[in-house]
Amino acid sequence: MAFITLTTDFGTKDHFVGAVKGAIYSELEDAKIVDITHEISPFNITETAYILKNSYKSFPKGTIHIIGVDSELSDENKHIALELDGHFFVCPDNGLISMIASEIKPTKIVEINIHDRIESSFPVLDVFVQVACFIARGGNLTVIGKEINEFKKIIEIQPKANQAETQIVGGIIYIDNYGNVITNISKKMFNDIGKGRNFKITAKKHSFTKIFSKYNEVATNSAYSNQQYEGHKLAIFNSAEYLEIAIYRSNLDTVGGASSLLGLAYRDTVVIDFVNQPEQEFTILN
Amino acid sequence: MAFITLTTDFGTKDHFVGAVKGAIYSELEDAKIVDITHEISPFNITETAYILKNSYKSFPKGTIHIIGVDSELSDENKHIALELDGHFFVCPDNGLISMIASEIKPTKIVEINIHDRIESSFPVLDVFVQVACFIARGGNLTVIGKEINEFKKIIEIQPKANQAETQIVGGIIYIDNYGNVITNISKKMFNDIGKGRNFKITAKKHSFTKIFSKYNEVATNSAYSNQQYEGHKLAIFNSAEYLEIAIYRSNLDTVGGASSLLGLAYRDTVVIDFVNQPEQEFTILN
Amino acid sequence: MAFITLTTDFGTKDHFVGAVKGAIYSELEDAKIVDITHEISPFNITETAYILKNSYKSFPKGTIHIIGVDSELSDENKHIALELDGHFFVCPDNGLISMIASEIKPTKIVEINIHDRIESSFPVLDVFVQVACFIARGGNLTVIGKEINEFKKIIEIQPKANQAETQIVGGIIYIDNYGNVITNISKKMFNDIGKGRNFKITAKKHSFTKIFSKYNEVATNSAYSNQQYEGHKLAIFNSAEYLEIAIYRSNLDTVGGASSLLGLAYRDTVVIDFVNQPEQEFTILN
Repeated sequence: MAFITLTTDFGTKDHFVGAVKGAIYSELEDAKIVDITHEISPFNITETAYILKNSYKSFPKGTIHIIGVDSELSDENKHIALELDGHFFVCPDNGLISMIASEIKPTKIVEINIHDRIESSFPVLDVFVQVACFIARGGNLTVIGKEINEFKKIIEIQPKANQAETQIVGGIIYIDNYGNVITNISKKMFNDIGKGRNFKITAKKHSFTKIFSKYNEVATNSAYSNQQYEGHKLAIFNSAEYLEIAIYRSNLDTVGGASSLLGLAYRDTVVIDFVNQPEQEFTILN
Repeated sequence: MAFITLTTDFGTKDHFVGAVKGAIYSELEDAKIVDITHEISPFNITETAYILKNSYKSFPKGTIHIIGVDSELSDENKHIALELDGHFFVCPDNGLISMIASEIKPTKIVEINIHDRIESSFPVLDVFVQVACFIARGGNLTVIGKEINEFKKIIEIQPKANQAETQIVGGIIYIDNYGNVITNISKKMFNDIGKGRNFKITAKKHSFTKIFSKYNEVATNSAYSNQQYEGHKLAIFNSAEYLEIAIYRSNLDTVGGASSLLGLAYRDTVVIDFVNQPEQEFTILN
Repeated sequence: MAFITLTTDFGTKDHFVGAVKGAIYSELEDAKIVDITHEISPFNITETAYILKNSYKSFPKGTIHIIGVDSELSDENKHIALELDGHFFVCPDNGLISMIASEIKPTKIVEINIHDRIESSFPVLDVFVQVACFIARGGNLTVIGKEINEFKKIIEIQPKANQAETQIVGGIIYIDNYGNVITNISKKMFNDIGKGRNFKITAKKHSFTKIFSKYNEVATNSAYSNQQYEGHKLAIFNSAEYLEIAIYRSNLDTVGGASSLLGLAYRDTVVIDFVNQPEQEFTILN
């Protein structure tokens, strides 16, 4: 059975998503089409990269992921199809697979070249659907494109450690449905650089010296109910294993989330300073 | 075929929903996954209870309903699975099944205890999916949990009648997509207590002495077109058989709905007074 | 396999969509249900007509399209089912199929008459689902309704050309997810009336003398990157082949779209003047 996922900035009101699904079913009656999201902020590559990285892996091997964000063809913006980690991706070459491909190398990348026959202002419908259905039927990537070795990277989503490895400088790449603020600093990087040392996280005027692994851990005193901790700020490695700054049981519509309450926004800087000698200035939570 | 529904407060932008669906398909390629909604207001149990009650029943018997609202595990918030009315529910024990279970008793409830192996800040993905797939394969609830007899109730969603049965005091539990205001007073309760007597419904400074069964009934004078009744307020038993206060052909974006136009909000009180002797003060619409 | 699509103004938070899907699956376990959209502005027929026209065609022949917008039954608002272009539509007779049926005549229309048995404030669930499942099983339209020859038209969505064919007067019928402004003037009408003459498009104080076929064509000078053209206004025949006024790479949340930046709104007038003699006043883009 062919699984095809859709990740776009089309929104769910317009006819775009319906038209794309109809076109897939017209070619592959038995396909299973799954929406990852259609709510990407228009043209936002970083958001796309983050969402894709944290969802593709849970699908069965062989799943084909169509990504329609900033996908109009131009000299600067080629269309590519690639195989990576047993999954297929059909997307523009604008950096949105950087985050996935930073950890796992693609086994094959092609620049799609079936465009000679197709002139289109809606390439997801006119090109990506055809390519995805071709792959679903077992077609080889090299038939629909020319093999290439490189794809575009986006720099923005790479945090940096200084040479002395006393500091990581990262940034906020995503605000989620609860107003939680997600950074580009992964648990792996934190552990690799930090090596168990004490630390202090700074985001604007807020700082944290603990990182939780569950939201409920903020409710440390069992004499109080969890609800009494509502509104407490915390740092956590979220389920995607990225450092996140959160407000416990936040709700953007009522109490507000970390983004609004702490004044943190997309692209703001987040710094982690590590302390070489445990001076008890910071506390580690294991 | 296994039907699995999803009711969450995840929103549709983040990767959460996509990740959960991928995980289900990875275990059960043939599953039919249906979104009830992902737009529950974060952590809102009452909304969840109302939506669930009015949607689960239309699904085929044997459907498994995963509910991911305020589902992080804690001492106060256990995870349960239950069978009720031929349907299965996998959810936190925080009261959200109160509204369903107030009418139909569960045949079996278990407290899920497969957590020893799973430490998670995303229990819907890591625990509920496993439990749902286990049930879908025909597994017995007692294998994944310890049987219990009780589940948490939420008081808020129970309207009250006085002892003389002259009055029902209820509240607003939900505002729908059209701005209609839905109370917790069911048609059944209204009929049981009212026994056909005249009545007066009061919500803030608004009152009603008729309850319609269709919105169009407000357009009583056939000399006028339905459109001329736009903006009229009315009380109706909605399709879920709850008392609703509506604005005819309302649109939150333009004319406004009952919630905004009448100044009614979630948790506001709604009172029904019954009149023992028909003094023609109120009119019944049969 | 039965394909059934849903186009409604229900929104995605309430229980309505879930209840309808459950009811379909309860009758037809193998159905493939596809959401076109549930975000139609409440009761907006023109939006529905536009979205439907641009999505239905991509689905396999035989697909059944349920449309739930302003669908409560009344003397003014009958329920109909029709076959057109190899597709089936189950909907209220309120004009929403005008745009499809203006180009392709229905082969059969019936006024649904199974209502004697069903009194409902939720006709999509109680009536349309039954009709759709009946059609899916191969049932004949005349069994569930009385054949009729006419359906309601909406005038609003018809642009007009003057007798001398020097001018088209149309209007804005839709604002899309990117804030692009879509008119009711089709490429076909433009070509039929314009016959290759020079032209000038006027929408409020904005005018255009070129129509693009791809958004990227606005980036005419390859010495600059596409991003430097962000915010440029343009006229384009969109993928639905309607005249659209757009802002290149627009984002309603940040830079704004054509609707906000150019002050254009739903129902505003758009005029095209054709020039008989090419005085080089306007430029044609082929």
